[in-house]
Amino acid sequence: MDSKISMDDIVALCKRRGFIFQSSEIYGGLQGIYDYGPLGVELKNHLKSAWWKSIVYERDDIEGLDCSIITHRLTLKYSGHEDTFTDPMVDCRQCKHRMRADHIVDHKCDHCGSKDLTQPRNFNLMFRTNLGPVDNETSFAYLRPETAQSIFTNFKHVVDATSRKLPFGIAQIGKAFRNEVTPKNFIFRVREFEQMELEFFVKPGEDETWHKVWVENRLNWWKKQGLQAENLQLQPQKKEELAHYSKATTDILYRFPHGFEELEGIANRTDFDLGSHTKAKEEFTLFANVATNSDSNTKLGIQDPQTKEYIIPFVIEPSAGLDRGVLAILTQAFTEELLPEGQKRIVLKLKPHLAPIKVAVVPLARNNEKIVTKAKEIKHFLQKLGIGRIKYEDTGNVGKAYRRNDEIGTPLCITVDFDTFENTEETVTIRDRDSMQQQRIAVKELIYFIKNFF
Amino acid sequence: MDSKISMDDIVALCKRRGFIFQSSEIYGGLQGIYDYGPLGVELKNHLKSAWWKSIVYERDDIEGLDCSIITHRLTLKYSGHEDTFTDPMVDCRQCKHRMRADHIVDHKCDHCGSKDLTQPRNFNLMFRTNLGPVDNETSFAYLRPETAQSIFTNFKHVVDATSRKLPFGIAQIGKAFRNEVTPKNFIFRVREFEQMELEFFVKPGEDETWHKVWVENRLNWWKKQGLQAENLQLQPQKKEELAHYSKATTDILYRFPHGFEELEGIANRTDFDLGSHTKAKEEFTLFANVATNSDSNTKLGIQDPQTKEYIIPFVIEPSAGLDRGVLAILTQAFTEELLPEGQKRIVLKLKPHLAPIKVAVVPLARNNEKIVTKAKEIKHFLQKLGIGRIKYEDTGNVGKAYRRNDEIGTPLCITVDFDTFENTEETVTIRDRDSMQQQRIAVKELIYFIKNFF
Repeated sequence: MDSKISMDDIVALCKRRGFIFQSSEIYGGLQGIYDYGPLGVELKNHLKSAWWKSIVYERDDIEGLDCSIITHRLTLKYSGHEDTFTDPMVDCRQCKHRMRADHIVDHKCDHCGSKDLTQPRNFNLMFRTNLGPVDNETSFAYLRPETAQSIFTNFKHVVDATSRKLPFGIAQIGKAFRNEVTPKNFIFRVREFEQMELEFFVKPGEDETWHKVWVENRLNWWKKQGLQAENLQLQPQKKEELAHYSKATTDILYRFPHGFEELEGIANRTDFDLGSHTKAKEEFTLFANVATNSDSNTKLGIQDPQTKEYIIPFVIEPSAGLDRGVLAILTQAFTEELLPEGQKRIVLKLKPHLAPIKVAVVPLARNNEKIVTKAKEIKHFLQKLGIGRIKYEDTGNVGKAYRRNDEIGTPLCITVDFDTFENTEETVTIRDRDSMQQQRIAVKELIYFIKNFF
Repeated sequence: MDSKISMDDIVALCKRRGFIFQSSEIYGGLQGIYDYGPLGVELKNHLKSAWWKSIVYERDDIEGLDCSIITHRLTLKYSGHEDTFTDPMVDCRQCKHRMRADHIVDHKCDHCGSKDLTQPRNFNLMFRTNLGPVDNETSFAYLRPETAQSIFTNFKHVVDATSRKLPFGIAQIGKAFRNEVTPKNFIFRVREFEQMELEFFVKPGEDETWHKVWVENRLNWWKKQGLQAENLQLQPQKKEELAHYSKATTDILYRFPHGFEELEGIANRTDFDLGSHTKAKEEFTLFANVATNSDSNTKLGIQDPQTKEYIIPFVIEPSAGLDRGVLAILTQAFTEELLPEGQKRIVLKLKPHLAPIKVAVVPLARNNEKIVTKAKEIKHFLQKLGIGRIKYEDTGNVGKAYRRNDEIGTPLCITVDFDTFENTEETVTIRDRDSMQQQRIAVKELIYFIKNFF
């Protein structure tokens, strides 16, 4: 299918079928904050699992981590976020509206058109909250703006507990928060989101090779999730675009409904982060120019087994947005097809491992006890395979059940009908979502068929 | 083993082996906030999966959800949290220390001993943060103090998307935040934690029966996670202990190192929650006494298919603490055993489905290419089974590898040694964590053995 789909089509499907809802909608909603519904939570969890499997389970050189959201203010002081994680803002003196300075067209307020604007001031994008019963200027903490920092502050803990040697990585999936001034494009730019971040620690000098390896690895992974090559682009950032910690960053862009935009960035962060958080930086040879840390109580070096010297490794960071991943996958999968009879169908062509419902088991007649019993029995034994959610689908006729399951991306429907009991061997119909082909198969062969399919 | 284990034993193991670390420790730590290390994240994720499977996948009447942490203030106004989710606090006029009024002994400051204390004032336990670029008294939101409320505010979304009829449930796993004045007992009472909550909606009148069903169901589930009956207690709350929304609550207590304490509560919340969040409450017959809601834009009733009448269902809520679950499981599993040779071993007797590492593959000699290659090959094909993390363990001699894996609860160790290649058929040794029994098995039978074991 080639017709261009719009963000509105996706938003509408997501609400109608229970993928994603606006958060707190009964109270007017919260801008840039979303809730995942019954199908969205499955899709999101399957994407997380696929990442974790590929990064932590299928390699021998990566450990996992799951750290707190509430983060010590010193962590975000020394990471540079307190000073640099800002947007320039101006206020309109006329109507009091506040807006991003870099978004203003023609020096005019985008709200009332006045030119009477203040000078830009830096607005920090981190959420703050007060910790403990006393509220004063030192008792606050931040909601983490990225999962990366807690990987750096736990570096020594992980090395001590696992005896890792370079190169090795630490991976984390979790929520992060940014007080975006203008959240937009559905779940693309939001204030509460999830990241899948890997910090891969390497010997200085091996960083450029590993950077290439990870760009390649991550691009391939996204293809395995179903994103097509023609909708993906690699974009090395220009020197002047690089963040203060980065020696080189390559973005993986995806063709979202609103255009090619960043899905994941793979940065060569050098030794900036561990160098910034370490105690006694003067004891190490550092590439990055970092401030002296007078608060850290821990040296973040690791011993080189050959030279016995302690060094601060470089880090390659593939950092992916989980919500952006969900949006890219929905965009790629959303398909409108013209059927032979002239009708249209919407079908979500999700990879089977990402589909929220793996199999729908449909009884042809809801009031036939034999059919209903058999359908439920099949549902329950398929459930035991542990491949994900199997649905007993009795909310309409078979045609409607197929359409509904096409729209939510269920790869297979199994129908129990009167023919099921016609022969000595019980049989059912299996219908394939994409080809719409149906085949008759013996119930006792179902397990092998389904296991083989997923 | 019968010797009583202490919280210190558990805390020490957790840090040494990488289960749980104090958060932001390099900057002095944050009180009541913890990070899960490489093994902790696996244990926690496996416990979440077990819950999700049992609640969402293996039943036909429950939908999942995953909502935002940042929550609209009106949600927490109408839920009652703004008014009632408080602890009474007093300040010491002498040393300015602030403490919980209900924890003070002998009317004295627990810090300096002064009796010059203020009257108790209510201190709200919710974390606040400012949303958007403008900071004023209406622009703030809360970090959710429980996952339950977003299930209630999304009730209509879920019913519309899934066409559910009563009885049915909505389940959620996620972080919640409480600004505890005195966090304590490791991960038992913390400021950032995870919950596994189910809101099960039933017809009024069927609530008491369903309450019993869920108490029974949840108690059995915890037993399946390895908690022993003698360490579990059911404790119905007394009338005067009940929260304002509850008609009856039964707590499941576990024998933690610091005593029997709540692991999960199963509450009959009546129609209080949906009644509190609904528009036009006067159109419904409500059991609970709720305030009129002048802000909600949605009626939270559901149609009775027989009478066609819209009713507000009752809700039964099994609400479990995930971190408390992890602590209970570590407490139960932690075992010190005297070995025949007089040595001691620590072994974590975790249920196989919860173990962070499923199998450790150990090469007997690290410098024998044939052994190393075969061990890696076995690691990689076991990995493909998708049962969790398989570890290639070459960081010491075999004896040490066994001890280390006992301590982290790895159910099986597979050793590749010189005998592996002695016969026409390749063989390995499989060692069982609990019995320490070893058996010789053909490599080609490994897959069946492992699949069967997990």
